[in-house]
Amino acid sequence: MYERYWQQTGDKSTILIPGWQSMSYFSDAGSLCWFLEPEFAKEIFRLHKVVGNAVTEDRYIVVGTGSTQLYQAVLYALSPLDAAEPLSVVSAAPYYSSYPLITDCLKSGLYKWAGDAQSFNKEGPYIELVTSPNNPDGFVRQSVVNKSGGILVHDLAYYWPQYSPIAAAADHDIMLFTVSKSTGHAGMRIGWALVKDEEVAKKMVKYVELNTIGVSKDSQLRAAKVLQVVTDGCKYPPSKEGSLFDFAAHLMEERWKLLRAAVRQSGLFTLPEFPPGSCRFLNISFAPRPAFAWLKCEAPIEDCEAFLRSNNILTRSGIHFGVGPQYVRISMLDRDENYDEFVERLSTIHLRQSMHVDETAE
Amino acid sequence: MYERYWQQTGDKSTILIPGWQSMSYFSDAGSLCWFLEPEFAKEIFRLHKVVGNAVTEDRYIVVGTGSTQLYQAVLYALSPLDAAEPLSVVSAAPYYSSYPLITDCLKSGLYKWAGDAQSFNKEGPYIELVTSPNNPDGFVRQSVVNKSGGILVHDLAYYWPQYSPIAAAADHDIMLFTVSKSTGHAGMRIGWALVKDEEVAKKMVKYVELNTIGVSKDSQLRAAKVLQVVTDGCKYPPSKEGSLFDFAAHLMEERWKLLRAAVRQSGLFTLPEFPPGSCRFLNISFAPRPAFAWLKCEAPIEDCEAFLRSNNILTRSGIHFGVGPQYVRISMLDRDENYDEFVERLSTIHLRQSMHVDETAE
Repeated sequence: MYERYWQQTGDKSTILIPGWQSMSYFSDAGSLCWFLEPEFAKEIFRLHKVVGNAVTEDRYIVVGTGSTQLYQAVLYALSPLDAAEPLSVVSAAPYYSSYPLITDCLKSGLYKWAGDAQSFNKEGPYIELVTSPNNPDGFVRQSVVNKSGGILVHDLAYYWPQYSPIAAAADHDIMLFTVSKSTGHAGMRIGWALVKDEEVAKKMVKYVELNTIGVSKDSQLRAAKVLQVVTDGCKYPPSKEGSLFDFAAHLMEERWKLLRAAVRQSGLFTLPEFPPGSCRFLNISFAPRPAFAWLKCEAPIEDCEAFLRSNNILTRSGIHFGVGPQYVRISMLDRDENYDEFVERLSTIHLRQSMHVDETAE
Repeated sequence: MYERYWQQTGDKSTILIPGWQSMSYFSDAGSLCWFLEPEFAKEIFRLHKVVGNAVTEDRYIVVGTGSTQLYQAVLYALSPLDAAEPLSVVSAAPYYSSYPLITDCLKSGLYKWAGDAQSFNKEGPYIELVTSPNNPDGFVRQSVVNKSGGILVHDLAYYWPQYSPIAAAADHDIMLFTVSKSTGHAGMRIGWALVKDEEVAKKMVKYVELNTIGVSKDSQLRAAKVLQVVTDGCKYPPSKEGSLFDFAAHLMEERWKLLRAAVRQSGLFTLPEFPPGSCRFLNISFAPRPAFAWLKCEAPIEDCEAFLRSNNILTRSGIHFGVGPQYVRISMLDRDENYDEFVERLSTIHLRQSMHVDETAE
């Protein structure tokens, strides 16, 4: 989806790396996050400042191989090494389907997935993941567990103005971001954490050191370049398409309009409804246009994923997100041609269904 | 150490990545390792073929964020998910100091570090890591546990002609390599595994997917370029310095000569002695010149690391490698100026020591 934007930026967003550059493990040997490229750190601060979506003052940056690695670094950093039992990790359903898989894949004795935060009632310390806007359903979220001993981790991968109004600068202890959702560069595998507590940041660095001995310098240099172009584009909009966020916000708005029209036409599904909010970056009020559509099949369809699959639409079932099979998650960030094809198929399902019924009746 | 070589390759080893390139998670959606750049895979095969250090026929390539991530992918792939107790992981001491740390850092229920392979006598399945040439001591190795139920993992990071004669193409079930030791590009964080069994390769891919959703495309593209230049340089040696391996082999030989002279001069240490072997790539016979020096302090010095530290030489104590404090590991791959300074300090220790004794005597 973002490719077209980056094509029109031309040489400005190109990087060139000679064979003799960036050979060492170290980026900044003396600093807390010794594998963080200083140039990338600088551009992270600049971008948050211009967008206004996160407080960066008095924060440590920890870079990761995508925010996925940083999520694991956070679990490692927050889990006491000598606890009698693993630390519980919870998130309100529907939650990002990878959280339980990643948390439990190595059967760690340090932490353990404990499911839906709304029904969590175990005594003792825990980690609550707050994904806001939420993956998969797009809602702005706050913590739901109301107990002492909890540590909050905010996954803000989608807190960018193309998806959601920027109401205020997020100001949490641990905040995760990723280039894949902000600029579209998933292939870079670059994420960053803004961390208030020095000891937590140090332990996260330790995890990345143990797991991958740092993070690709090449991708950090490229991410620095890309973020620089985004920030410059916000300050001095380069063309009629405006900044990356103008471009992507416009596209997301169009896509959501098309989707809602298709859903209305089909008469078989519902979508979440979002109240509009004021965005301090775009200086307008608008309703969120999330990176995923959280589609619900209405009765009598029970298994939405299977139903859509039979209509040549591939989605991810709600059961992976801690809820029922009447829900599915659909990416809103695919290439134009794929997205248009998906909307076309969705909007004509009711026709194919009635044809199917007619055929059966014969 | 390798920087000078790459500087003289000039533009040939430079890559240029436009902002719109390599944006997707996927590199080759239909293939087993869906995040492996086909161009990089091709260059891995070419390089092994020209060097002759590993059999690549009927092997799957799994790319990782350094071979460190691949080591963890192997543990995940080989551990049964439903075992009553964690799988034992062993390696003959002295072993790479990171193995136990990485293996046990998350207190996994799937696998567990079980120490020195030479004294391992537990019944049941196990993984034996065979690092050859070995980190830290440089010796060529074979498995030492003589029991059934073991799975061998060969870490061949140092099986390149600048360090060790290439006696034959390694032909093992699971072989790990990394660009950091072959070409010197540690900052790329790129490694690769050659894997015979399809199911093992699939599970390794699954781990990398869970851990980091693939591997930096930028670094894979750069690694492809760098490997291409190395292979081309082997086929058509570009200058008086010859191929990367000629260049590095020459440098390593010089460095080992200097080190052995300094050790002789000091009279306080010993180094491993290696028998010469015939190298099918360089077409000469030579003794290994490992990437690390495994230095032993002779009596009465008991703590070699502390002794050297007091002489302004920073090393890593043998205790981290499963043996005693009379040993230390020293990198042989540092920049020229650092290496020369180290050898200078080492060769004059005995002078400073006698001065110190004289002063004490006064």
